[in-house]
Amino acid sequence: MTGHVNPLRDPEDRRLPRIAGPCGMVLFGVTGDLSRKKIMPAIYDLANRGLLPPGFSLVGFARRDWEDQDFAQIVHDSVRDHARTEFREEVWKQLAEGFRFVPGDFNDDHAFDQLRRTIEELDEVRGTGGNHAFYLAIPPSFFGDVADQLKEHGLAQPKEGSWRRVVVEKPFGHDLESARHLNHILDEVFPSGSIFRIDHYLGKETVQNILAMRFANNLFEPIWNGNYVDHVQITMAEDVGIGGRAGYYDGVGAARDVIQNHLMQLLALVAMEEPVSFDAESLRAEKLKVLSSVVLPDRLDLSTARGQYTAGWAGGQKVLGFCEEDGISKRSKTETYAAVRLNVETRRWAGVPFYLRTGKRLGRRVTEVAVVFKRAPHLPFNATATEELTPNTLVIRVQPDEGMTIRFGAKVPGTAMEIRDVNMDFAYGGSFTESSPEAYERLILDVLLGDPPLFPRHEEVELSWKILDPVLAYWASKGTPDPYGPGTWGPKSADEMLARDGRTWRRP
Amino acid sequence: MTGHVNPLRDPEDRRLPRIAGPCGMVLFGVTGDLSRKKIMPAIYDLANRGLLPPGFSLVGFARRDWEDQDFAQIVHDSVRDHARTEFREEVWKQLAEGFRFVPGDFNDDHAFDQLRRTIEELDEVRGTGGNHAFYLAIPPSFFGDVADQLKEHGLAQPKEGSWRRVVVEKPFGHDLESARHLNHILDEVFPSGSIFRIDHYLGKETVQNILAMRFANNLFEPIWNGNYVDHVQITMAEDVGIGGRAGYYDGVGAARDVIQNHLMQLLALVAMEEPVSFDAESLRAEKLKVLSSVVLPDRLDLSTARGQYTAGWAGGQKVLGFCEEDGISKRSKTETYAAVRLNVETRRWAGVPFYLRTGKRLGRRVTEVAVVFKRAPHLPFNATATEELTPNTLVIRVQPDEGMTIRFGAKVPGTAMEIRDVNMDFAYGGSFTESSPEAYERLILDVLLGDPPLFPRHEEVELSWKILDPVLAYWASKGTPDPYGPGTWGPKSADEMLARDGRTWRRP
Repeated sequence: MTGHVNPLRDPEDRRLPRIAGPCGMVLFGVTGDLSRKKIMPAIYDLANRGLLPPGFSLVGFARRDWEDQDFAQIVHDSVRDHARTEFREEVWKQLAEGFRFVPGDFNDDHAFDQLRRTIEELDEVRGTGGNHAFYLAIPPSFFGDVADQLKEHGLAQPKEGSWRRVVVEKPFGHDLESARHLNHILDEVFPSGSIFRIDHYLGKETVQNILAMRFANNLFEPIWNGNYVDHVQITMAEDVGIGGRAGYYDGVGAARDVIQNHLMQLLALVAMEEPVSFDAESLRAEKLKVLSSVVLPDRLDLSTARGQYTAGWAGGQKVLGFCEEDGISKRSKTETYAAVRLNVETRRWAGVPFYLRTGKRLGRRVTEVAVVFKRAPHLPFNATATEELTPNTLVIRVQPDEGMTIRFGAKVPGTAMEIRDVNMDFAYGGSFTESSPEAYERLILDVLLGDPPLFPRHEEVELSWKILDPVLAYWASKGTPDPYGPGTWGPKSADEMLARDGRTWRRP
Repeated sequence: MTGHVNPLRDPEDRRLPRIAGPCGMVLFGVTGDLSRKKIMPAIYDLANRGLLPPGFSLVGFARRDWEDQDFAQIVHDSVRDHARTEFREEVWKQLAEGFRFVPGDFNDDHAFDQLRRTIEELDEVRGTGGNHAFYLAIPPSFFGDVADQLKEHGLAQPKEGSWRRVVVEKPFGHDLESARHLNHILDEVFPSGSIFRIDHYLGKETVQNILAMRFANNLFEPIWNGNYVDHVQITMAEDVGIGGRAGYYDGVGAARDVIQNHLMQLLALVAMEEPVSFDAESLRAEKLKVLSSVVLPDRLDLSTARGQYTAGWAGGQKVLGFCEEDGISKRSKTETYAAVRLNVETRRWAGVPFYLRTGKRLGRRVTEVAVVFKRAPHLPFNATATEELTPNTLVIRVQPDEGMTIRFGAKVPGTAMEIRDVNMDFAYGGSFTESSPEAYERLILDVLLGDPPLFPRHEEVELSWKILDPVLAYWASKGTPDPYGPGTWGPKSADEMLARDGRTWRRP
């Protein structure tokens, strides 16, 4: 295979061309949305950027009566529809030579035997060298079955000098206990350094840039603490409803779906101390310290809010309420909006609330971190000069419109000294000619390289649940979520929650 | 006159519509560039914005055989060519009714008698109420003559309940002694609160915004000190040569022309402590404190640089060297480029050099203040990740392209952690619909309102000379300025001056 043409390398990687060595991937759940929309396109994009080894192989496993070429067609369609980089026939051809399909279900010993033979064959003809990642793009309820099968059929144990890894996606359980159970299942089969939990937010450029921005500069860190910061708002808002995800979403809800993973990880990156380095151990150590310091306020009735979207109009279209959606019980108490106040009990952050919120059918699709600063201790201006001035705010725009904004006061042109808010802006798109790789490209490459800094370890997952469990229990003990109309910014109770603290949510 | 239509007020002044009360102005030097290009257009623009009293009157005084209507024609042409706001016939008509002309030279007693009668007539027919400002747009060598005449003819002394003010422009002398002499001349005739020294830089929106930016926000002040700032660069660069100013410029030079006034004032605003309020006394007190703390380094050979532009090409045109310009001696030692390092010996700034530079025929026309921050004390990245990272810098763009830029490091999109400089930008033009008044509009209105915060007091002027005098004396004792080519950024010696400190000039 070494005679193959290696596609041109992406210029963005000229410094550290981290190219995966010989390896392959086994994908469970090939027919799901995640595989089709994210994983398969990312694998093609990595190949197109020259970051995969020439003999890279992809084995699909599913309960389908398919041949290799049927699987290849599925991947082809997915790449055509969702790949970020342009389609190049020679890249595709070389990649597709490494596609294999193994039919079977998760209890089928015969199928896992065949999987082992397939992998051995690939090691021989494609030179994958015994290095394989098992990507479990399947519901967590099946993790145990698959893990057991991988163990029993000798697939989990690498030969000397090679590796086996397992990749799992959220939800990592639905509470602390189930998360521990899931972690236990995986730990039984794979050593902890071989388990890669994907939180795709951590693969986003803007999220990684939080670390670059904080620790490569001398401008922000001096004011990044409770002396200057009033509070932090972390928002992930979606303008769509649950779409086709009823089966997954009902009984899970906004807090488990988003706060437990994405928003807690964002909080950790924003609030953590400088790591010794950016290797996995150092980063995780700092994230763990922050998450261990997170404390819920005593009164959950005052410091949390939840809602459920009602029917109405959004974007010029009539939309259903959550309880009218296909597959959702009319009496569902699942929240589609969740907000919670967290305190970070460290020297740096004591007294600075972190407000986390997420919801569906909100006014706009946006994910951002807003660091809201205290007002200047003294304003040597006339009272009227600053009446339109709001607190200085630094906003990290995670998506869309990736970048950063600082909102501060400037003099309004004119003969009077009048101060008004202005924005100072940095846009990723305008500043770099390099286009941002998809989060999944970055994360899949990291899996193949065995580079774990961007993956939450099981202690982080469990700590996040430990923080959230009392909120979930409190909500379960109370009636139903508060209603909110589509296209709004959540229930009234969420606004009241901040108003009690003398603050308001940003309208991003 | 109260029956006159009052033009619509400018919306930018809705908050504090500071409209001048009944008054007039006497302009000496009506045929000069300053009058035609700046003062006359600014008066029209103020009238057009509804900020002048309906009976406002303007008396021209010059050694010309003119009638009132000749003077009116001169003003008309100046307004047509240089006014910022659109020409409106009704505004012009009302304004022009208050134009008078008095012919005579500065030693002509008869002319000053006529000036007094003219003013008295205006008080009667236009209702100027005895309130008149004398604008000395003439070379400082004539200040004494005019001041004496104003005194002798009873023009300097206001009647009970009215005011007389005098307005002067730089140069405020050519060294400390001559500045003291000039101040003495004016002090003899006018009380100090009635003397308005115009440094038009202080009327610029971007300069006033330095105060708003620093003291209305909580983002910048915490890092605005020697703990975080490495050094400050204050630059006023012109791309043109001396043009028609040979008579003024030869023997004066860049340091006296620009550093002593504009750049020292910018330094004062950037470096000063928070004033108690923005009234004149409080502001001046803080500026004085800073200027009193400015100290020259011991070795002027190491901490200053000067240059003189040579012949060559600039902007696609062949241009003369300074010593070949019309009216300049072939052996002139006048510098057209000057750079100096100043230390500000305060708790806030000790150890932080302020580098001031100005020059003609440089690469670009730009005035800016660049606050260059220290590198982060520690960078938890690979060495290669930050090799393209330069120190964080906050740039206040005084002109052109008014606004502010922060330069900091962000992650380059891609799979490696690589940091590169990006800009975060705020542009005045993009943030405010209000257009910026010309500096002269603001300053003339302030004179008529008797509002002195933006005018340097004589102590400031003298302190600036006190700082600069040793540099000028040192240069006078040494040979000639170093040559530099047109379109460059000054002589090699200026680069070497910063290189000795381990720094480099910004290329704006």
